[in-house]
Amino acid sequence: MTAATPIPAAAEVAFLKGLRAVRQFRPDPIPPSVVDDLLQVARWTGSARNRQPWEFVVIRDRATLGTLADADGYAGHLAGAPLGILLVMAGEQPTQETYDEGRLSERIMLAAQSHGVGSCIGWFTSTGAETVRAALGIPDGKIVRTVISLGYSDEEARAARPKPPQGRKPLAELVHEDRYRP
Amino acid sequence: MTAATPIPAAAEVAFLKGLRAVRQFRPDPIPPSVVDDLLQVARWTGSARNRQPWEFVVIRDRATLGTLADADGYAGHLAGAPLGILLVMAGEQPTQETYDEGRLSERIMLAAQSHGVGSCIGWFTSTGAETVRAALGIPDGKIVRTVISLGYSDEEARAARPKPPQGRKPLAELVHEDRYRP
Repeated sequence: MTAATPIPAAAEVAFLKGLRAVRQFRPDPIPPSVVDDLLQVARWTGSARNRQPWEFVVIRDRATLGTLADADGYAGHLAGAPLGILLVMAGEQPTQETYDEGRLSERIMLAAQSHGVGSCIGWFTSTGAETVRAALGIPDGKIVRTVISLGYSDEEARAARPKPPQGRKPLAELVHEDRYRP
Repeated sequence: MTAATPIPAAAEVAFLKGLRAVRQFRPDPIPPSVVDDLLQVARWTGSARNRQPWEFVVIRDRATLGTLADADGYAGHLAGAPLGILLVMAGEQPTQETYDEGRLSERIMLAAQSHGVGSCIGWFTSTGAETVRAALGIPDGKIVRTVISLGYSDEEARAARPKPPQGRKPLAELVHEDRYRP
């Protein structure tokens, strides 16, 4: 729907531009009503032909979070997060679902940010995905690749760590008008 | 950043949940300042290792929009849109970039919605992508697959057309706690 929204465009644009990954979390749990909002936003994500090719495993168990953090890949930040959401994709149309998985991830992060909750995307290699599959009982054929760490940012720990590069290319390097001009 | 935002969480969650594809557009052009906002939001999208593996072709030329609308795939709605943004991906890490392409698309649509601009994702088949590549001079190796139609919704035309299914599965079908339970 593009009906009038109570959010001024400039505020929304600033909100969208302001999303940054958070990798260091305080141990405070995320209230259930906030988790429900994230899942509702996730549920309403658009997908090709409205297939909704996804399921979510909401993980609070510390041992399980640790197992996933140690699995091959880039999900180490999960070890310090109070909660993770693992995305389980249907595995029927891999390219299309990978694209939909990106849409879904972005929304979960934005919904989290709206509640002041930080997030970071974790990604498993294929061997890491097998570890996760075995640990959580995920059927063969489903795609397991992305987990989102969620929690309140530990600003002190964040400030103490070197930040990965966060700048962005200028539009002049990215935008072409009507035709691609190398 | 998860710093305090002036947007109440409930309003943002409703905004995120409310995004729907728009396929019928009025001919009114989109003001340049709005297009700039969309591109700025696109530019600030997160990507794996901050690679930013994307470029954008902003298309207003009617003949070009028509060529893309006719290319093999699912971008027919572009024929009636005042503007399209074609996503050109680097083509170096296809799976990762397909995921990033989904994140990017979602943000462009949300930024558009914040300005009351409707949008719809178009998708080219591989033969359609070759048509687009030739028409716009896009180098071999780059991935061309997604175009986003943008414009103000033509509510009358929308109302007159059968709507594709827009409902969503309930969370009870999607969510698992700590472990996958088929």
